[in-house]
Amino acid sequence: MKKFNFEENSHRRFNPLTNSWVLCSPHRTKRPWEGHKEVIDDESLAEYDPECYLCPGNTRAQGDKNPQYENTFIFNNDFAAVKNDQPEYLEQSKDKISSLLRVEGVRGECKVMCFSPKHNITVAEMSEDAILCVIQSWTKIYREMSTKSYINYIQIFENKGSIMGCSNPHPHCQVWCTETIPEEPTKELISMNNYYKNNNSCLLCDYTQLETIKLKYKPRIVCENNSFVCLTPFWAVWPYETMIISKSHIISLLDLENDDDGNILQKDLANIIHRITCKYDNVFECSFPYSMGIHQAPVDNKDHTNDSHLHLHFYPPLLRSPTIKKFLVGYELLAEPQRDLTPEQAADRLRNCSEIHYKQK
Amino acid sequence: MKKFNFEENSHRRFNPLTNSWVLCSPHRTKRPWEGHKEVIDDESLAEYDPECYLCPGNTRAQGDKNPQYENTFIFNNDFAAVKNDQPEYLEQSKDKISSLLRVEGVRGECKVMCFSPKHNITVAEMSEDAILCVIQSWTKIYREMSTKSYINYIQIFENKGSIMGCSNPHPHCQVWCTETIPEEPTKELISMNNYYKNNNSCLLCDYTQLETIKLKYKPRIVCENNSFVCLTPFWAVWPYETMIISKSHIISLLDLENDDDGNILQKDLANIIHRITCKYDNVFECSFPYSMGIHQAPVDNKDHTNDSHLHLHFYPPLLRSPTIKKFLVGYELLAEPQRDLTPEQAADRLRNCSEIHYKQK
Ligand SMILES: O=P(O)(O)O[C@H]1O[C@H](CO)[C@@H](O)[C@H](O)[C@H]1O
Ligand SMILES: O=P(O)(O)O[C@H]1O[C@H](CO)[C@@H](O)[C@H](O)[C@H]1O
Repeated sequence: MKKFNFEENSHRRFNPLTNSWVLCSPHRTKRPWEGHKEVIDDESLAEYDPECYLCPGNTRAQGDKNPQYENTFIFNNDFAAVKNDQPEYLEQSKDKISSLLRVEGVRGECKVMCFSPKHNITVAEMSEDAILCVIQSWTKIYREMSTKSYINYIQIFENKGSIMGCSNPHPHCQVWCTETIPEEPTKELISMNNYYKNNNSCLLCDYTQLETIKLKYKPRIVCENNSFVCLTPFWAVWPYETMIISKSHIISLLDLENDDDGNILQKDLANIIHRITCKYDNVFECSFPYSMGIHQAPVDNKDHTNDSHLHLHFYPPLLRSPTIKKFLVGYELLAEPQRDLTPEQAADRLRNCSEIHYKQK
Repeated sequence: MKKFNFEENSHRRFNPLTNSWVLCSPHRTKRPWEGHKEVIDDESLAEYDPECYLCPGNTRAQGDKNPQYENTFIFNNDFAAVKNDQPEYLEQSKDKISSLLRVEGVRGECKVMCFSPKHNITVAEMSEDAILCVIQSWTKIYREMSTKSYINYIQIFENKGSIMGCSNPHPHCQVWCTETIPEEPTKELISMNNYYKNNNSCLLCDYTQLETIKLKYKPRIVCENNSFVCLTPFWAVWPYETMIISKSHIISLLDLENDDDGNILQKDLANIIHRITCKYDNVFECSFPYSMGIHQAPVDNKDHTNDSHLHLHFYPPLLRSPTIKKFLVGYELLAEPQRDLTPEQAADRLRNCSEIHYKQK
């Protein structure tokens, strides 16, 4: 009888962080594609755009004027999804009609952070030094927001590329701070907490050790340095999904700060972000779209030593070319996420991509 | 102090079926949109397309020729995500290296079902009689596949529109049958089972009663008939997401069959599908894209009387116009689904849409 082959046969893999499964159908990569193709948005941009509300010196929607900033610049989102000045939600008797209509009020703050004054650059083309500035601004905002007593979680994320719903190419990320701990981090906290109780060790410490040290072949590692590894997780959903994980047990950006050692950890993080984003652009020689986000300890004043471990997720939608993405639709929404190429195949491709940006060759 | 207002203030709502939260930021509908716009695909199609692999009489990828079918037509997917003829997956010692690398083999079968021989029609424009034929074909395939001992779940779903990853406009759905019970139905089964244990009643029976009878104002009902209701669930994620739920406790399509009463239940289902899909097209006077799927009892030979209740989910991506969709990206992928308009606002709009298709006016 033929042996089961992970590159040929359908199987599902378990995500221990979110406690859920993903279906992997590797033979589907052979399927021709006649469906929708994205339009490539490769109009060349100027370094400064007088119409851009993120460029230095320009005026934003509510009339505020941006300073002539030189590295990063942080301001309050003019169309915030959560606000701090809203009435408290008091459960009303009419809402109690049934436990099936459960609601919570959500207060919070939404910030926008520009990565650079240059309108026409992306993280992939920024220097490690410039990325280091971004990391230091992330750390600053995490510290600042964590002092506000009503804020319990800080989600830093970047939507890159118009197909990821990003409405302005000026390099920027968002920071949504809420009194509630949102769904995804909650799932991870629960899983990590359970894992710690059962194994007396940290899930992501163990997983990182497994991938970087214990396994003889290292099929999912994309690149690494002394402090961080970038890999395609065994349970990845998106075609070229990766995670950056700190090798030591670090629970938030604050743990990276250490002026005494010349901020080695922060620099190593800048280094690995630089390398993976550059590799991404080189996969199809295009500006590679993705949503990226940082998961770290909540700021709810509880002890998160055992259920948090700093990591970044990259979710890029492209599958075969700059115009052909993976659709997570019918079966994925109704039944189970399904992927075509294996995480090992994706890692292989990324590993072999140059760390010199294609535009700089 | 001002009172909390669900149409102004941010809140999150709990989905008791999947046991998860969604963030609702109703004031965000006021935000201008300058980002990506979809291209409208309104080239008019012929009733028969010689290049289409789903049209009657044409030849498919692997050489099979379609019959001159008159209503529906079912065949095996030529690029199936799961197959029945693959080696059994035997857990190998090297996989046991860690509980962090969990895998299962997944065997199954994937079918495609054409709704109509006409290349240029969609469900929204089909007659109730034609939709009745579709329902009867769904029932036939559910019955047929449920006799195969290695199949435990049957997922029927339709991706409509190129922005939902549909690669052929010919009206069709897919049926993926697997030995595993996928992620989403599993979550629902667990929630419904727990609810039954705690309340001695069915979650969706109670929810339907609440929305259709108990509430004085019926803010989320879109349309109904004697046997089914179509509503925007209290916890909807997609802008115009709806559910069709059977009013009586029916656990699968098989329960709808009853020749003696002239198949009233099947006809009522055809009626409500006809009405909601027609309303959808009328929202923006365009062919409204969506992913649709049927959740019903697994076919694993267990008793699903208490944890299953037949329902259909519609997940349509459009938000403001035929070209402006809602992006579920950064925050949604990393933290929590976020919606702009409230389910009640969406229901209101859908309720006021005509049930006569705009093209027929
Ligand atoms: O099988 P199709 O219709 O070609 O493919 C479409 O639906 C599948 C099931 O939802 C998805 O996995 C694919 O990404 C999508 O393009
Ligand atoms: O706030 P933005 O960048 O305008 O909006 C984008 O990101 C948000 C957070 O992921 C999403 O809710 C929006 O759908 C998307 O278009």
